[in-house]
Amino acid sequence: MIIVLRDNVTEEQIENLKKHLNKYGFEICESLGVQKRIIGAIGAKPDFDTRKIKILDGVAEVHRITEPFTLTSRNHQKENTVIKIKDVEIGTDQLTLIAGPCSVENEEQIFKLAEVVAISGAKILRGGAFKPRSSPYSFQGLGEEGLKMMRKAADKFGLLMITEVLEVGQIDLVGSYTDIFQVGARNMQNFSLIKELGKTNKPVMLKRGISATIEDWLMSAEYLLANGNKNVMLCERGIRSFDKYTKHNFDLSAIPIVHRKSHLPVIADPSHAAGFRDYVPAMARAAVAAGADGLMIEIHHDPEKALSDGPQALLPAIYMQLIEELRIIAGAVGKKL
Amino acid sequence: MIIVLRDNVTEEQIENLKKHLNKYGFEICESLGVQKRIIGAIGAKPDFDTRKIKILDGVAEVHRITEPFTLTSRNHQKENTVIKIKDVEIGTDQLTLIAGPCSVENEEQIFKLAEVVAISGAKILRGGAFKPRSSPYSFQGLGEEGLKMMRKAADKFGLLMITEVLEVGQIDLVGSYTDIFQVGARNMQNFSLIKELGKTNKPVMLKRGISATIEDWLMSAEYLLANGNKNVMLCERGIRSFDKYTKHNFDLSAIPIVHRKSHLPVIADPSHAAGFRDYVPAMARAAVAAGADGLMIEIHHDPEKALSDGPQALLPAIYMQLIEELRIIAGAVGKKL
Amino acid sequence: MIIVLRDNVTEEQIENLKKHLNKYGFEICESLGVQKRIIGAIGAKPDFDTRKIKILDGVAEVHRITEPFTLTSRNHQKENTVIKIKDVEIGTDQLTLIAGPCSVENEEQIFKLAEVVAISGAKILRGGAFKPRSSPYSFQGLGEEGLKMMRKAADKFGLLMITEVLEVGQIDLVGSYTDIFQVGARNMQNFSLIKELGKTNKPVMLKRGISATIEDWLMSAEYLLANGNKNVMLCERGIRSFDKYTKHNFDLSAIPIVHRKSHLPVIADPSHAAGFRDYVPAMARAAVAAGADGLMIEIHHDPEKALSDGPQALLPAIYMQLIEELRIIAGAVGKKL
Amino acid sequence: MIIVLRDNVTEEQIENLKKHLNKYGFEICESLGVQKRIIGAIGAKPDFDTRKIKILDGVAEVHRITEPFTLTSRNHQKENTVIKIKDVEIGTDQLTLIAGPCSVENEEQIFKLAEVVAISGAKILRGGAFKPRSSPYSFQGLGEEGLKMMRKAADKFGLLMITEVLEVGQIDLVGSYTDIFQVGARNMQNFSLIKELGKTNKPVMLKRGISATIEDWLMSAEYLLANGNKNVMLCERGIRSFDKYTKHNFDLSAIPIVHRKSHLPVIADPSHAAGFRDYVPAMARAAVAAGADGLMIEIHHDPEKALSDGPQALLPAIYMQLIEELRIIAGAVGKKL
Repeated sequence: MIIVLRDNVTEEQIENLKKHLNKYGFEICESLGVQKRIIGAIGAKPDFDTRKIKILDGVAEVHRITEPFTLTSRNHQKENTVIKIKDVEIGTDQLTLIAGPCSVENEEQIFKLAEVVAISGAKILRGGAFKPRSSPYSFQGLGEEGLKMMRKAADKFGLLMITEVLEVGQIDLVGSYTDIFQVGARNMQNFSLIKELGKTNKPVMLKRGISATIEDWLMSAEYLLANGNKNVMLCERGIRSFDKYTKHNFDLSAIPIVHRKSHLPVIADPSHAAGFRDYVPAMARAAVAAGADGLMIEIHHDPEKALSDGPQALLPAIYMQLIEELRIIAGAVGKKL
Repeated sequence: MIIVLRDNVTEEQIENLKKHLNKYGFEICESLGVQKRIIGAIGAKPDFDTRKIKILDGVAEVHRITEPFTLTSRNHQKENTVIKIKDVEIGTDQLTLIAGPCSVENEEQIFKLAEVVAISGAKILRGGAFKPRSSPYSFQGLGEEGLKMMRKAADKFGLLMITEVLEVGQIDLVGSYTDIFQVGARNMQNFSLIKELGKTNKPVMLKRGISATIEDWLMSAEYLLANGNKNVMLCERGIRSFDKYTKHNFDLSAIPIVHRKSHLPVIADPSHAAGFRDYVPAMARAAVAAGADGLMIEIHHDPEKALSDGPQALLPAIYMQLIEELRIIAGAVGKKL
Repeated sequence: MIIVLRDNVTEEQIENLKKHLNKYGFEICESLGVQKRIIGAIGAKPDFDTRKIKILDGVAEVHRITEPFTLTSRNHQKENTVIKIKDVEIGTDQLTLIAGPCSVENEEQIFKLAEVVAISGAKILRGGAFKPRSSPYSFQGLGEEGLKMMRKAADKFGLLMITEVLEVGQIDLVGSYTDIFQVGARNMQNFSLIKELGKTNKPVMLKRGISATIEDWLMSAEYLLANGNKNVMLCERGIRSFDKYTKHNFDLSAIPIVHRKSHLPVIADPSHAAGFRDYVPAMARAAVAAGADGLMIEIHHDPEKALSDGPQALLPAIYMQLIEELRIIAGAVGKKL
Repeated sequence: MIIVLRDNVTEEQIENLKKHLNKYGFEICESLGVQKRIIGAIGAKPDFDTRKIKILDGVAEVHRITEPFTLTSRNHQKENTVIKIKDVEIGTDQLTLIAGPCSVENEEQIFKLAEVVAISGAKILRGGAFKPRSSPYSFQGLGEEGLKMMRKAADKFGLLMITEVLEVGQIDLVGSYTDIFQVGARNMQNFSLIKELGKTNKPVMLKRGISATIEDWLMSAEYLLANGNKNVMLCERGIRSFDKYTKHNFDLSAIPIVHRKSHLPVIADPSHAAGFRDYVPAMARAAVAAGADGLMIEIHHDPEKALSDGPQALLPAIYMQLIEELRIIAGAVGKKL
């Protein structure tokens, strides 16, 4: 922590400041000389609330010099995290492709789509059984029945499965079916939930909240790692924008930034970011070009009948064609698909 | 729902559109004549995903003509909701004043502050026992011990109490101590939690998520009402801004807007919005002037030692002085304090 | 500037960094000891692009320790700027009230409204003659004819006048009529314009751009002061929001923040912030309660016929009633109206 | 315009509404029957301020059914605009590559970089001679001297040139040197400037304001077209974000959306969006993958000595390598480079 003092700071104020720094457990460094205006403070916890110093008399500014995240930080671990689930590795130069419907709707639907997913070369089947919906009157998912159908479909086609878990009380149930837990954007700061997921050993994909800063996002990932779960991947799915045309703003610059700040893999979800299927292919291509470690794409063979988010689902044929384009782009950025 | 057709729409496309509308359960209205470009569709559920129509060929635009919220809407209930808890009424021309520390820290602290709260004329004591913290390494609250202390302090000084509940599994425990449940900003769309709170009978204060639109916020309140709990108040506490100086943007225009759209009372929380105690009085005054039904203010007799959010807590003396200013402003807007 | 070095920084990298700092004209301070990770650099211009250091090898973070604005800063001038125009003073404990129509439409209109303004006790008449409109097809103002009418109306009722200037080529013309130049939100970073206005001696009201940070805003004010014009007041009028209900977000927290950072007076414009007349009184009251030095309010005796922004104009009767409420609130914050 | 009436609307209110619609020049359509709640109004100007209807008694909601932009709209012109300048065409399946320094600094610099630009296969040289800077103390450009140097360099290497024009008074001067006018983000709503540029015949590149909606942006382009200049291209360069790590948010979803809404070409500027050279290649690749018609990239052979924005400039070698990657990606989206 760097503390910049006011021009008219008094000796008394400096003494008071030092007393506080000692109390909070900081080691104080000599001021920088020349202009006696700066004090360094080293040693306290990364989550120290710097406002405690900012409000002291004589203090002009306070700068934290360490990121508040540690275990998720690239400083802590130089090499990329690679998550291994059976024969699938996430976070290598092999792009991870996750596809499937927004919600599991019935056995026929999920089997049909799982087949498409397998044919496309994707290794992971997505689908929601417990759905967080903005409206209490909307379809809330099939629950455990949906999980069962999904597991059967995944097994039949040799796929892994990923599905969302909404609350602490569901962890055991969902965990008994899924290979990867998904934490949705709305739950990114549901700390009760992520703390408990951190105590499991199962991989977790943590979606970015729609107004979460990258720091907020990595701090939530930190909860998972601090509780013992190292198998964490992030997922960018669009942030809040002021524009009605681009309801969510697909923040692709987050991809290279997270890669610099952290060792965790980043998946991109162009379906939620775009919201309309017509924009999904362009955004999927852009995400791969920006360096994403993988994509999560919603597909549906009959989007008009989809019980949720049909308008953003790709038809299987369009999806298959997109995969071909992505393969070329992957090559241009040193990845394989 | 109003559907605007493209200029070059074909009869075939119109037929297809009508078929879809029928399928989704809409009654179709004759087009508006003159320019055959508009179709009305009436009768489906308020949460119908209008994108399902938007993606059909020949459709230029789709406008929802009903708000997606119903029970929370001023259309549904003309008169203001008044929440009665013992002898306290929230939502009348009597301003509701809620005050107390960010976190309960120990018995001495909460008793000292409860006394200040009572003397100030406030009727409700706030305090956190289960704290949602951005960092896994920060103080997470005293848990049930904190609830006990708070209940004792509230009882001793004849106050009601409000405290945050973080997860479904805590509802019974927290509910056995508190008079009002608080749902924090980060949990505003934790639908599992608010659904269960909707099944209790205890009043709930629903804080606005930092990037929640007013519509999102009212839809979350809708979950509470739809599950049977009518005792709901909202709380504005600042939204995400692009400016580092105003980390949270206190959205005071939300107050008159919510009053027009909904019958639910709106409390304002200038402490979280401002983040620094120096700005709290100005924002508290502004909130009352803008028509808030009440205020929630953080106080601490020794903010430097506060275990959380000390920098935004008012000293008791400053708080008492603020109350006097608020009394005058309340009078200017037809309210009492 | 504080430079935090990476943990694995090499001596070579530190040498290279120091060479750069010297080249850019900085004086280098000894590192802070203990952990050899910090270097202080003092002395360069406040607008130094810190990214130049950030990109050097071995550098982890760079913190600017001085605000980039100087003349507008409270550090530079402790006492509030008071702008004197004839017998009117802006920036004292007397609230400055500015009122009038969005656009000057005809002589009858501006005379009628100027009379209302004078009766209400306001000292400054507002009105647009050159209008910046989002659409090229909208009413663009009466031009010089409008300026003439406004001057006559202001003189007849003993008022000062304020009107917007859109481009460098208009400065002389507009300046020959108006007492105060207004720079609109869209032109806040039209540096050509503000540079030239800085060379005049006439007071300037600088509106905040809808996505300008407070720092951006003060930097634009800095252009005015640096070019010699000290008579500068700021105007908060709402910033970009993600919510359709609150199209502009009236950033009232900017008022106490600007008062701390700068010595310049801040006027609030609730009419543009609210966009609908029904919300204007609440926002006007809130602005005074938050400590604004003045208000700018749009009024119209026949808003339905207004050529621009009629929906946000207050009727004279509502406006007069609002003034009474504001008087009470002004008293609560130590101001007069 | 669709007008939704309140449930309790009276006949009197409907009459009053119809009277207003007539007065504003609308043709009224029969209500939609069943529920007598909707009125259609057809025929007024696209920029009609719908708030004028929204404030009438009995009106619940008003929906504009036409976009406010017309000449820029894809409805108005089905085929893509192709801008031809000498032998260069912008808006075809040939990607337009624009490169050069942020500012022209001296003859040696601009000649050196123009050579790189030519070798890379780019056809257009960029460079600023009049610079809009946030700080009045920063380098403001070489002015006409810079224009001269740039023209010479462009001519020597067979390139077109693009440079920014800041004010009406500079149009003739800048126009006598440049092939394309650039309007910067800060001037996107400087209507005086764009109106005058609309009266010239020279191509204009209109950068998106950092908080401009796509609609705002197209409305500013409408000013150019409405004044007679059809040679307009747009440029996405990042919008305001709440995240300090991604200072500007490169809004790549704007590319497919603009292509759907409008016939104008869209150039992407990854240099300004990223702000740091390390992120430029990833964002450049993503922009091409998202379907941009071209790229504008800042390069510098000695970024550390650059007088402006050096940290975001690519070194020539990195730039040349990026071009190769872009060539592959262009192929994947049906474009050539």
